[in-house]
Amino acid sequence: MDKMDNVMIKAATLSEALPYIQRFNNKKIVVKYGGSAMLDAKLQESVIKDIALLKLVGMKPIIVHGGGKEITKWIGKTGMETNFVNGLRVTDADTMEIVEMVLNKVNKGLVQKLQKLGVKAAGISGKDGATMMVTKKIVKGGDLGFVGNVESINPDLINTLIEQDFIPVIAPIGMDDKFNSYNINADDAACAIATALKAEKLVFLTDIEGVYTDIEDKNSLISILTLDEADKLIEDGIVGGGMIPKLNNCIEAVRKGVSRVHIIDGRKEHCLLLEFFTNKGIGTAIIANEGTYDNEQ
Amino acid sequence: MDKMDNVMIKAATLSEALPYIQRFNNKKIVVKYGGSAMLDAKLQESVIKDIALLKLVGMKPIIVHGGGKEITKWIGKTGMETNFVNGLRVTDADTMEIVEMVLNKVNKGLVQKLQKLGVKAAGISGKDGATMMVTKKIVKGGDLGFVGNVESINPDLINTLIEQDFIPVIAPIGMDDKFNSYNINADDAACAIATALKAEKLVFLTDIEGVYTDIEDKNSLISILTLDEADKLIEDGIVGGGMIPKLNNCIEAVRKGVSRVHIIDGRKEHCLLLEFFTNKGIGTAIIANEGTYDNEQ
Amino acid sequence: MDKMDNVMIKAATLSEALPYIQRFNNKKIVVKYGGSAMLDAKLQESVIKDIALLKLVGMKPIIVHGGGKEITKWIGKTGMETNFVNGLRVTDADTMEIVEMVLNKVNKGLVQKLQKLGVKAAGISGKDGATMMVTKKIVKGGDLGFVGNVESINPDLINTLIEQDFIPVIAPIGMDDKFNSYNINADDAACAIATALKAEKLVFLTDIEGVYTDIEDKNSLISILTLDEADKLIEDGIVGGGMIPKLNNCIEAVRKGVSRVHIIDGRKEHCLLLEFFTNKGIGTAIIANEGTYDNEQ
Amino acid sequence: MDKMDNVMIKAATLSEALPYIQRFNNKKIVVKYGGSAMLDAKLQESVIKDIALLKLVGMKPIIVHGGGKEITKWIGKTGMETNFVNGLRVTDADTMEIVEMVLNKVNKGLVQKLQKLGVKAAGISGKDGATMMVTKKIVKGGDLGFVGNVESINPDLINTLIEQDFIPVIAPIGMDDKFNSYNINADDAACAIATALKAEKLVFLTDIEGVYTDIEDKNSLISILTLDEADKLIEDGIVGGGMIPKLNNCIEAVRKGVSRVHIIDGRKEHCLLLEFFTNKGIGTAIIANEGTYDNEQ
Amino acid sequence: MDKMDNVMIKAATLSEALPYIQRFNNKKIVVKYGGSAMLDAKLQESVIKDIALLKLVGMKPIIVHGGGKEITKWIGKTGMETNFVNGLRVTDADTMEIVEMVLNKVNKGLVQKLQKLGVKAAGISGKDGATMMVTKKIVKGGDLGFVGNVESINPDLINTLIEQDFIPVIAPIGMDDKFNSYNINADDAACAIATALKAEKLVFLTDIEGVYTDIEDKNSLISILTLDEADKLIEDGIVGGGMIPKLNNCIEAVRKGVSRVHIIDGRKEHCLLLEFFTNKGIGTAIIANEGTYDNEQ
Amino acid sequence: MDKMDNVMIKAATLSEALPYIQRFNNKKIVVKYGGSAMLDAKLQESVIKDIALLKLVGMKPIIVHGGGKEITKWIGKTGMETNFVNGLRVTDADTMEIVEMVLNKVNKGLVQKLQKLGVKAAGISGKDGATMMVTKKIVKGGDLGFVGNVESINPDLINTLIEQDFIPVIAPIGMDDKFNSYNINADDAACAIATALKAEKLVFLTDIEGVYTDIEDKNSLISILTLDEADKLIEDGIVGGGMIPKLNNCIEAVRKGVSRVHIIDGRKEHCLLLEFFTNKGIGTAIIANEGTYDNEQ
Repeated sequence: MDKMDNVMIKAATLSEALPYIQRFNNKKIVVKYGGSAMLDAKLQESVIKDIALLKLVGMKPIIVHGGGKEITKWIGKTGMETNFVNGLRVTDADTMEIVEMVLNKVNKGLVQKLQKLGVKAAGISGKDGATMMVTKKIVKGGDLGFVGNVESINPDLINTLIEQDFIPVIAPIGMDDKFNSYNINADDAACAIATALKAEKLVFLTDIEGVYTDIEDKNSLISILTLDEADKLIEDGIVGGGMIPKLNNCIEAVRKGVSRVHIIDGRKEHCLLLEFFTNKGIGTAIIANEGTYDNEQ
Repeated sequence: MDKMDNVMIKAATLSEALPYIQRFNNKKIVVKYGGSAMLDAKLQESVIKDIALLKLVGMKPIIVHGGGKEITKWIGKTGMETNFVNGLRVTDADTMEIVEMVLNKVNKGLVQKLQKLGVKAAGISGKDGATMMVTKKIVKGGDLGFVGNVESINPDLINTLIEQDFIPVIAPIGMDDKFNSYNINADDAACAIATALKAEKLVFLTDIEGVYTDIEDKNSLISILTLDEADKLIEDGIVGGGMIPKLNNCIEAVRKGVSRVHIIDGRKEHCLLLEFFTNKGIGTAIIANEGTYDNEQ
Repeated sequence: MDKMDNVMIKAATLSEALPYIQRFNNKKIVVKYGGSAMLDAKLQESVIKDIALLKLVGMKPIIVHGGGKEITKWIGKTGMETNFVNGLRVTDADTMEIVEMVLNKVNKGLVQKLQKLGVKAAGISGKDGATMMVTKKIVKGGDLGFVGNVESINPDLINTLIEQDFIPVIAPIGMDDKFNSYNINADDAACAIATALKAEKLVFLTDIEGVYTDIEDKNSLISILTLDEADKLIEDGIVGGGMIPKLNNCIEAVRKGVSRVHIIDGRKEHCLLLEFFTNKGIGTAIIANEGTYDNEQ
Repeated sequence: MDKMDNVMIKAATLSEALPYIQRFNNKKIVVKYGGSAMLDAKLQESVIKDIALLKLVGMKPIIVHGGGKEITKWIGKTGMETNFVNGLRVTDADTMEIVEMVLNKVNKGLVQKLQKLGVKAAGISGKDGATMMVTKKIVKGGDLGFVGNVESINPDLINTLIEQDFIPVIAPIGMDDKFNSYNINADDAACAIATALKAEKLVFLTDIEGVYTDIEDKNSLISILTLDEADKLIEDGIVGGGMIPKLNNCIEAVRKGVSRVHIIDGRKEHCLLLEFFTNKGIGTAIIANEGTYDNEQ
Repeated sequence: MDKMDNVMIKAATLSEALPYIQRFNNKKIVVKYGGSAMLDAKLQESVIKDIALLKLVGMKPIIVHGGGKEITKWIGKTGMETNFVNGLRVTDADTMEIVEMVLNKVNKGLVQKLQKLGVKAAGISGKDGATMMVTKKIVKGGDLGFVGNVESINPDLINTLIEQDFIPVIAPIGMDDKFNSYNINADDAACAIATALKAEKLVFLTDIEGVYTDIEDKNSLISILTLDEADKLIEDGIVGGGMIPKLNNCIEAVRKGVSRVHIIDGRKEHCLLLEFFTNKGIGTAIIANEGTYDNEQ
Repeated sequence: MDKMDNVMIKAATLSEALPYIQRFNNKKIVVKYGGSAMLDAKLQESVIKDIALLKLVGMKPIIVHGGGKEITKWIGKTGMETNFVNGLRVTDADTMEIVEMVLNKVNKGLVQKLQKLGVKAAGISGKDGATMMVTKKIVKGGDLGFVGNVESINPDLINTLIEQDFIPVIAPIGMDDKFNSYNINADDAACAIATALKAEKLVFLTDIEGVYTDIEDKNSLISILTLDEADKLIEDGIVGGGMIPKLNNCIEAVRKGVSRVHIIDGRKEHCLLLEFFTNKGIGTAIIANEGTYDNEQ
């Protein structure tokens, strides 16, 4: 009876998930959602289903998302010109308007998908409840416009939603002390929110498998990095490019009390389940120097 | 001492507000916000300040807003073509995308202004928490696309926000049972929400002073309309045009338990305070046949 | 990479469990635990793990257990003699003492196994909080001694434990209005408790695969029985023996408001997961005449 | 249209009150009520209406009152003789009986007026719930009888009333450790209660405009006094007479954590509104050395 | 050892109180306190101690008191003249002022005695929280002045006090719809309050042992009266004088849902304990026609 | 009237209990129940009634019991052999099974008796909710088997029961970190539980009147022992035998924060009432060095 074999395997698998479900019961899990996992329809469905499952088995996921390539697309559609400072796009008032429209559209789209799965979700930006307050980001060589650094998080609205069983879906927009709108890097926003919520885990869905000691060698993937090791990787120039700010975010979050921060490959189907329901997880985990990494503990 | 005279008048005025504040203490007040009051910057500021004041003196305002002329503007910006059925704009999938982006932008803009005044606000659409579920609106002569009639309201998310002291700001977007997005007429949305919340008042901010028996004669403004009188005005063809659906919304809301529904002139500064803090209010009130109209009772 | 294939299958399996987890979220599930599933150590472990998992994914399981063959064993050990009435063992005062000792031992043993898995459990009998009050069971032909029929359930203690996140483990002992101890048939106790708690499901773990139309023909297993069909099976003499009282318990529980009652094969490993996490479940379900059987709805 | 101008001014005035209402939202405000504001019927009405308004716009007022000239009047009515020590009236047992009767009469009269305005109020003395415990006041030159210094405040009853939305109206009577009744100076009682409640403001309604550097010169009214400045005024003998104990009460209250203490002119109609709803308030404010005085912050 | 015998008797007595304590656990008990039990210092102490004990063993006593002979004494002291209508004292405005002063003095005196025993108490009148609203009592032959009939009870303040563990001590003063003060007969007030609170027992402390069939014959004391029997006693003229209104109050209270109403002899020390902690109680109990009288049930 | 004299004495006795009831209101009282008080049916009834009374007058009793002579009796019944190490019985796995059966039987018997008196009770062992975790007791000269020292108490389940108004009845069985069952000395268990609950009193019911300075001289009973005095008694060898571990338990409990620990004579009827409702109590009290002993304070 082939079919019964299958259901037996299924039952065994579920049974094996027990310690992991237990381990993260009632814990706040911040997921930074972006990259390919957002662009590919099938991956998007897999991520949303995973998050819904995390919620249903007793965790408290919070989604912080970027805008993917939608922002560029809509700037194009409206025929706006884009200025650059040091190769970084300037977010002038008109651009900020588009950014906010796009991010809110993406935001409500994620809410829609979660609700479709029967999970309660509510989409907010950092403006709602003045959740994220920022200061203008200053860079050498020019004015980036309305790009902000997170100054403070007011977690009241997020916690209200969590307590009433909603998954908060958060667009990375904040306000300065004059209540102007600012764009925030989604990684930065996720890091600040995870820290303010004292989250158990912060997971970055990225387009890379994790941190490598040798980017050319797939076998050099690092599973666990202590803070000291992570600092050293940057110091020694072993990691570079886009990984440096991401790693710095991870380091900061762990320093400020998030137990474990993960860089995982969002291009892999069910990557969140693989991270949460297997002993060693996937990708790279950044932990405190005195910490250990084991999903069962 | 001229100045002291002024502050004495001020004190007297505040003192006179006592019975009105008492009358609406802790009551839910749904404000449909649209028209000129949304387009003119000064009026917008006056409306937002009024709503903040209603909140602070103990009422529980809920804002339902439209998109004003912004939707048309952004359809123009992106060079989309618009189709019409019986003179009504067709909301195809692409148009719906713009509608949603614009409504969410307007939504967060209102939140921003309320927060700037120090009042807690949170912006949602009918998709969050599956608050507004719709069915497709069917008209003769063609397919209007993603335009919906409200089928049901789930007030949980709105009530969660109210209980935690946030002013809910609601964009009139809903989902059908396949979880597709639909545009909803903001008057209809306000009416459905006021009914579901068992609101004490539903106030439509419009670009007209109220209901006239003779539209040409400013002196024919009707202060109070019972349900029967309102029905008769429509039957007898005395009111017409855009007033008919608005009046029908009012009639429905009163029938379903909203105590008083008001059509007031949003072009008048502090129109909401004039409505709430004077004995006879302004504009036209629609009340139950057995009801009375007096803000003091 | 063989191993990655496995974890992918694992992730897919977990993902497929989503609708079932959702379906029974926060629902009270009464499990009558007895038979082989209690005697065989490996099956016992599988049942306990399954119940722990049901708890962790958001259900509220309640265990009602029998004493298995332990009672007979201990009566033997103490050299007591046993009297019979119509082939039924008489529970005199001395026997009742042993019955109670054994049932409480079994009870605390189950608590121990659940706690070992990290799940909070508390073992009670129907005497605690006067949870189960009985009247003496009267049979023709003799006096059965301290054997009781459940007269009333006071669910306060059980609900207190559930609300504080404990799994209640209940031994089928009650008291009469003179506060004497009585033995209760575990099936009867489970049925009365499920009814009093308005449980969503009542599951009997038995030593049979379910109800057959022809006990000799394994292919004649009935998946779903409406109340009328179940009544008819008994009337027509198609089922017999020990199945009749069990089926009558099922019928009564459904009549009194338990949505679905299940007779499943406790000899099958992970039988509870198979019942809860597959669309059609296993064994036989007894449902209301107008009901439908589908774990997804 | 003259009338519309008036309502517009009214609306503007209300709108201007917004920041003040916001500033004191949910804050506990202790009002020491006595002097002319208690004797003159019109002033009394104005004070009660002001307090009702403070309550309705979200503050939590607490009234501590004296007995005005009523005590002397009733001592006269009953033909009692009064003894004096150092010019201070001796409160013997008979006098204390009258004092208590009169204070409770005044107390319930204030409750009555607040209830008439539709505001919930409850009148207590320091004996109820053993709210105010005292020790006998010792003065040189004789025995003042039942005159007490506040030793401790049990705020439970007051807080119970506040939480249930009543305005507590408190007569300044306490008990010693033998549970004998004592008269307490109303200023002292108000000061002790404000301190125990960690009130935001303590306002003394007096028969003077505030503190002057030169009592003869109306222009020398001091708006703000830091603790150091207040101490110095007393040290330097610039203030004198009845102002010294009052100022000492203010100083003590600020030292013990009341943010701002005010001496305002109770003879001015709506003096409380003028204090709370204008930027600079009226009268004299005593604040911490490092404090600032601005009702908007 | 004589002493040990005594303590053993003591222990036995306490042990015997068990079923009575259980019977009235958490039940609201209204005690109308007046007559000799109020005038005699020793009796007063015994009543207060009894009430404190009832509170401490888990009941919820509420005291409604009269003014005893104090009102007459103080009217005398102030040299006021008293007018009569049909032999009833007229309560003009001046008299009402005295009445209120005296009742509040008595009220706070009872609070003081309870607090001295370490029991939390709070004294209110029917004016606080608008607890008792009245209409003017109309009698033939003249105007009685400010004498009121209870129209309605708002139990919120009383319940607030009970929930926070205070014994409410209530003076029988109410207000009419113009918020004027009125004197209320204390028996009437107690009856109205017991009814509004759905009290378990209403006990009148009187200067008589109970109801007699023959007032001259001490052996004719009636222990239990059903409503019908009580009606008949009045109809047949067997009871007369001051007993008629009291009996009517009892009848009304039982009709409106108070389980048992008692007329007991307040001149007997510990009369309340004798009523509550003996099987048959003392005095006369008025019960529903279908009721039974037994403190143990 | 002889009978009335009796009830008057009864009332006086109850009235005298007032200060004691007040003193222990809402306090947690741990009673170690064992010895003769458990074996003699009449004493057992007296203890249970006393505990029910303590509960009803507002205390929060918790019972920790031993197994009396029942364990030995049942070991005999099953014909098991008993091994000894240094004269101590070895609790091998088989013995532990019997111990657990017997203790749970005793446990449910106490629950039954309390419920019969109308008091809510729930019986647990230290295994339920993992309330008592132990380590194996190590003695020189051999292996005692499953005998444990309490390592930690998780008071959640006990507190849950107390808050819901149940009397927790606790069998002294715990688990080690492998979740094996262990027998715990009932005195040790009571001591650990009293400490963890921060109980007001811990009372040991023993078969001795208290601590004597000269065991031969009944007049040498010590009423109060400070910690230092107790230490000295042991040091100086004045107390010996079974009293030493008991006294050490008392000392430890007082050191860890239990206010007063009592050794009283469980053979005396109503010993608990004598302890709680007389000023000096009975038996010996162990108190902190700086403490005082007086039930009224």
